[in-house]
Amino acid sequence: MNHTYAVIMAGGGGTRLWPVSRKKHPKHTLPLLAERTLFQSTFDRLDGLIPFERILVVTAAAQADELKRQAPQIPAENFLLEPEPRGTAAAVGLAAVVLHKRDPQAVMVILPSDHFIRNRELFHQILRAAVEVAQKDYLVTLGIQPAYPATGYGYIQRGERLPEGFSQPVYRVLRFTEKPDEAQANQMLARGDHSWNSGMFIWRAERILQEFARQMPELKSGLAKISAAWDTASQETALHSVWPGLRPETIDYGVMERAGQVAVLPAEGLEWSDVGAWDSLFDVLPADEDGNIVFGGQHMALDTCTTLVYGNRDGKLIVTIGVSDLIIADAGDVLLVCHKDQAQQVRQIVENLKNSNKEDYT
Amino acid sequence: MNHTYAVIMAGGGGTRLWPVSRKKHPKHTLPLLAERTLFQSTFDRLDGLIPFERILVVTAAAQADELKRQAPQIPAENFLLEPEPRGTAAAVGLAAVVLHKRDPQAVMVILPSDHFIRNRELFHQILRAAVEVAQKDYLVTLGIQPAYPATGYGYIQRGERLPEGFSQPVYRVLRFTEKPDEAQANQMLARGDHSWNSGMFIWRAERILQEFARQMPELKSGLAKISAAWDTASQETALHSVWPGLRPETIDYGVMERAGQVAVLPAEGLEWSDVGAWDSLFDVLPADEDGNIVFGGQHMALDTCTTLVYGNRDGKLIVTIGVSDLIIADAGDVLLVCHKDQAQQVRQIVENLKNSNKEDYT
Repeated sequence: MNHTYAVIMAGGGGTRLWPVSRKKHPKHTLPLLAERTLFQSTFDRLDGLIPFERILVVTAAAQADELKRQAPQIPAENFLLEPEPRGTAAAVGLAAVVLHKRDPQAVMVILPSDHFIRNRELFHQILRAAVEVAQKDYLVTLGIQPAYPATGYGYIQRGERLPEGFSQPVYRVLRFTEKPDEAQANQMLARGDHSWNSGMFIWRAERILQEFARQMPELKSGLAKISAAWDTASQETALHSVWPGLRPETIDYGVMERAGQVAVLPAEGLEWSDVGAWDSLFDVLPADEDGNIVFGGQHMALDTCTTLVYGNRDGKLIVTIGVSDLIIADAGDVLLVCHKDQAQQVRQIVENLKNSNKEDYT
Repeated sequence: MNHTYAVIMAGGGGTRLWPVSRKKHPKHTLPLLAERTLFQSTFDRLDGLIPFERILVVTAAAQADELKRQAPQIPAENFLLEPEPRGTAAAVGLAAVVLHKRDPQAVMVILPSDHFIRNRELFHQILRAAVEVAQKDYLVTLGIQPAYPATGYGYIQRGERLPEGFSQPVYRVLRFTEKPDEAQANQMLARGDHSWNSGMFIWRAERILQEFARQMPELKSGLAKISAAWDTASQETALHSVWPGLRPETIDYGVMERAGQVAVLPAEGLEWSDVGAWDSLFDVLPADEDGNIVFGGQHMALDTCTTLVYGNRDGKLIVTIGVSDLIIADAGDVLLVCHKDQAQQVRQIVENLKNSNKEDYT
């Protein structure tokens, strides 16, 4: 694993966990599930697998100070700051050129900064296997066993098993499907040969740069200019002159869907959640015997079940009587009371706030 | 109405409107329904009927400063401070001796400080009629037309109509029934000859003192000692020496249930609420087309109906999604989320808090 580097993608927002996740304090910077923030948990989870010197963080300039404060062990030069958001393809590309310049043999483990994963040993074992596959020039995706016909995830269809004798079963990818409708999702679940796309990717830096050259030549030429100036006095000038001209694109759509030699490694048994919306916390946080979950506040209840009480840090007492299937999230200046089955609608509220000039609440 | 005095009973707590109503800020001292507090609305409502000089306030010493601040127009000597709670019989008795000493012909209009009444003109008309009846030495109670088989109120059964030619129909009282069970309440409603006991009473001071002498002689003799010392240098000494020895008793149980010449004046058409618990606010505050009521906060909603959002004064934004029949009451340090049909259970929470050494929240 000497040439293996983690690249933590930490530039996102997470509006569906509003009002706790906010523009100024996005999801991954928050202690949403534990004392540590989701971002901190992401690098904590690599302990024993990848040392801090080989962990890169790609983030927005506005978030850099907070993330550096949260990760003093990660060298400052490992924080790559996007001047503005240009999608995951550009973010991965930036990390690829920086790593390739530093270590031409670099293998990149791309990790979202805002996911939950329970079993660290199993996760390490899966990543070791994935790196082994990436060394053979595959673009590796980690697939998650679908638990229900989710319409909020991308899906990956497995083809034949790869012939090489890898330590875990790995499959050629037949097809990526973007977020499906419910009928499609049910079909894919019934077929049994689909995984959720976790957004975790493993590949050699050189290999992904070849793929950029083939599929996104404009991005590749921009990255080449940045690469030439990197670690010189004109590094920032090059970055800021190239970046605004890049076309925003996701790595999935821009590269993966039409790439050659794409493999999926099913992360069998991995307890994973993208912590995508409030209802997902019911899968992740421990509940009491009535199915209630209390995090970060004081709760007192009569006749209450399957209710998530997400308190603010101010120690406010939250009392519930005669309710069920609720999400109660207190963010100090905003309180959300939402039925569990309508947690996706939170995004709509954030939109409504933006449209009614109440950006301060977003 | 020259000899008519209002006696506002303002010593209570109101735990069922917790967490907004608190030990230190009880219900009647709060702007629960409007800019004015319930206490202020109680004397505002007398405007044009009884002048401030003839409004007395019986309250707990601990509440006196706040109530005086809220009612600068009421002369300071009209605030009668109970050294400690001894029930409504003693409170009425104190007002009776003070008034009788001031004006032997005084008629007392006893008014709870924490009720809601909508139509002021009708209320004045009813009180004028009640005073007319009280002048004939009746103990008059105002009866409220029952809207549903409430188990939280006392009931008054009407007997024959009084023979005197009063300007409104008034009836002899056959029986008082304390808070009934549901079966009893249904029976009384079906009979059609019962009113709710509003806690509003009208009588001559001399007449009620006679009734105390007959039914509660110990209280009467204590009151006589206070009366003798009132408006002298030993007024406070007398009050504090007598008061602790009084047996706590309500005016209903201590006097009314066995008094002679008790009359009930049905307050026909009066929109009244005792604002007894959170669900009662649905009858009193205006709702939007979805049946939602917002008071004192900002509310933003998706798919929300019949929900009361009671905001704190800090302007917090409260967002609801996919909920109905909820009461959401934010008191700053405590938040209540309660099903509308379980509003009575709030009192249980206050008990639980007391029993778990969390008195600060009560």
